[in-house]
Amino acid sequence: MFKKILIANRGEIAVRVIRACKEMGVQTVAVYSTADAEALHVKLADEAYCIGGPRPQDSYLNGDAILTVAAASGATAIHPGYGFLSENAAFARQCRECGVVFVGPAPEVIERMGDKDAARRTARAAGVPVVPGCDLLESAEAAEAEAARIGCSVLIKARSGGGGRGIRKVERLADVGRAFTEARAEAEAAFGDGACYMEKFVAPAHHVEVQVLADAHGNVVTLGERECSVQRRNQKLLEESPAPCLDGRDDVRERMYEAARSLARAVGYEGAGTIEYLYTDNGQFYFMEMNTRLQVEHPVTEFVTDIDLVKWQLRIAAGVAFPYTQDELAPAKRAHAIECRINAEGPGPDYLPSCGTVENLHVPGGPWVRFDSALYPGALVPPYYDSMLGKLIVRAGTREEAVRKMRSALTELEVDGVQENSDLQLDILANPEFLSGIYHTNLMEHLYES
Amino acid sequence: MFKKILIANRGEIAVRVIRACKEMGVQTVAVYSTADAEALHVKLADEAYCIGGPRPQDSYLNGDAILTVAAASGATAIHPGYGFLSENAAFARQCRECGVVFVGPAPEVIERMGDKDAARRTARAAGVPVVPGCDLLESAEAAEAEAARIGCSVLIKARSGGGGRGIRKVERLADVGRAFTEARAEAEAAFGDGACYMEKFVAPAHHVEVQVLADAHGNVVTLGERECSVQRRNQKLLEESPAPCLDGRDDVRERMYEAARSLARAVGYEGAGTIEYLYTDNGQFYFMEMNTRLQVEHPVTEFVTDIDLVKWQLRIAAGVAFPYTQDELAPAKRAHAIECRINAEGPGPDYLPSCGTVENLHVPGGPWVRFDSALYPGALVPPYYDSMLGKLIVRAGTREEAVRKMRSALTELEVDGVQENSDLQLDILANPEFLSGIYHTNLMEHLYES
Repeated sequence: MFKKILIANRGEIAVRVIRACKEMGVQTVAVYSTADAEALHVKLADEAYCIGGPRPQDSYLNGDAILTVAAASGATAIHPGYGFLSENAAFARQCRECGVVFVGPAPEVIERMGDKDAARRTARAAGVPVVPGCDLLESAEAAEAEAARIGCSVLIKARSGGGGRGIRKVERLADVGRAFTEARAEAEAAFGDGACYMEKFVAPAHHVEVQVLADAHGNVVTLGERECSVQRRNQKLLEESPAPCLDGRDDVRERMYEAARSLARAVGYEGAGTIEYLYTDNGQFYFMEMNTRLQVEHPVTEFVTDIDLVKWQLRIAAGVAFPYTQDELAPAKRAHAIECRINAEGPGPDYLPSCGTVENLHVPGGPWVRFDSALYPGALVPPYYDSMLGKLIVRAGTREEAVRKMRSALTELEVDGVQENSDLQLDILANPEFLSGIYHTNLMEHLYES
Repeated sequence: MFKKILIANRGEIAVRVIRACKEMGVQTVAVYSTADAEALHVKLADEAYCIGGPRPQDSYLNGDAILTVAAASGATAIHPGYGFLSENAAFARQCRECGVVFVGPAPEVIERMGDKDAARRTARAAGVPVVPGCDLLESAEAAEAEAARIGCSVLIKARSGGGGRGIRKVERLADVGRAFTEARAEAEAAFGDGACYMEKFVAPAHHVEVQVLADAHGNVVTLGERECSVQRRNQKLLEESPAPCLDGRDDVRERMYEAARSLARAVGYEGAGTIEYLYTDNGQFYFMEMNTRLQVEHPVTEFVTDIDLVKWQLRIAAGVAFPYTQDELAPAKRAHAIECRINAEGPGPDYLPSCGTVENLHVPGGPWVRFDSALYPGALVPPYYDSMLGKLIVRAGTREEAVRKMRSALTELEVDGVQENSDLQLDILANPEFLSGIYHTNLMEHLYES
């Protein structure tokens, strides 16, 4: 195992990784921006270094500064968390060149999966169903021809897109040309790469993703699935495992797992990764993309499989072989886990991000209640970063019991000084469509209608 | 299920029960003393009633006041927690007479197990091994004769004793007569019952206890064991499951479980109960006593079995049949749980109880870390009650990993304003004897010697 690891992130995920390291006897090095001098990850790490100003590009995206700290502190590996540099192939390559282990897959794999068009082709080649669509579009005219072939509605998507940007949904053939031109321009501006492709807009659909763990010795396992259909502007708000939409469909579940393992094997994946699918109620699933890093929502998987994903990321990066067969990893019976993201935001309809100082904090406790956050009384919530304050995760014997447990825990949570969204989460947990177990990615659009 | 339950307790266990009720959709009624007006259990319950002054006999031991509140609020059941009225057969009988369900076994069972001498005879009759000894002693001369037969060292124990009181350890035959006279006088004064019996003093020994769950339909199951050998003045400080002293001794483990189930069946037990054994390294175990209530350390069992003991107490009291067979309850593989009791106390050697106001609180989080407490920033710790502030519980894949996880969590815990014992717990977790897995009930006597 590594003696010392640098955590190239902030907030709850930096705290999560630092705690795992402490439990493994690994020394930790934190990096932080000037806005995070008093942050919890700085307090908990064995060493901490300021690497720049509050803007991400000046600090948490500053690969040179991070590698300088790694060299100076003697850290031999870097855990990138999620976001920031976690899916940056150039940074992963830079780590390799500096002789520092990047905790994640090889740069070539990050690159291949980061190009959404290439990922789509790779998945198809590995026998994984993909959404009907086409490869890169040469022109507005080509886009129109493809849309006519596929049938509206369609999505025009940037090859280098991510986080919901560089996407245009087109409902009518007449609008395709203009949408293509706009999407290309937006992608060119945002990612320096205007290349776009087209997919059929599949709806209503569920977002179901499969957790993969693969080591350097050829072991590839899946750790169940998560349903993440509760989304607002392509941002997940609530995740659960197992996926209620797959209730009674173990055949589909098994095919999803097998497809995920095939794809991971096909690209020589190493570490923890996630295959995202669209799933429709007629039993079809389609590959969307692969995230080559730890997901925000990994705790729901940990709660139903009893596998610590962060510790296994570190062990796999250190060359340890994953010791359990797929059969030994059957998810616990009588287990359902739900995660609610607690975001710093004002009440609807704009949900503007909130920032400030946490004046008082009461964290719910008791059995099978987990709160992952970097909050403490007096903690600053700066305006520069993701608005997620923490994640509340519960586990219970059934989905119904898990929902009640989450409600109870949300009601008990108190974060004074910063506005947060636990009331919105309670509304979701009271929504009849959500409670039915069959809800789609459009749930948030009509949350208050039903 | 009950519509409304009264919780006749305070502190972390009242909070624990209230949370379970909320998750089950059961309304909660709290009672409190004037010292606890701002306590967390009062804030979390749906209704709360002040029942008297700070001294336990004026409030939490005041059965009449508690039953008055139950009647006035419409609560149809009372959960007694642990301590206070939880093993008071007269109160359980009073509940029955008032038509209120006492969450626990029948008064007759509480009575039979509360009389330590009768419990011993009941265990023996059920085929459960008991410590070599004798029944009630008539006189000092009879005590001397029995001690000569059994062989020193012996313990003289009050039939009505508890909490370590009314016990005398005698090393030499010449001291037996005087010790008997003293023990009888102390028991007469403390419990209004001077009757004493004698047992061989078994040492070195482990304290191993088995969790039992029995319903009204004849289902009796055991839920693994806990090792509670880390004790100071007969008070447990740290508990773990599975018991490391039984490592590789599944045969003994199985016999302990079977004996516990036999005894529970023999007395017509209903609810959650615990059979405490002494276990010696040659593979012998002896019945000590049965606790007819929830134990403080129940969370370690919850963490390795994934069964919510409080919810099952309530369901069983409401007549629900326990649905799992013994085979379906095999403890999780790759699971080890440890609990550290966080007490309000000064540093050694006197460990005087501490009280005051919690000025700041940082609770460790992350996967498989649970903190059960009634603390919040601003909470008062009054001097009238048990000094336990909370319980920190962790679960990991192995004992070694659980120890490291607990160390990490203890280091992160911050309770400002009240002195607490996490440094002492860290010393225990660093002790070579503890770490070896083979430690006895005398560990605390030489903690700082090794």
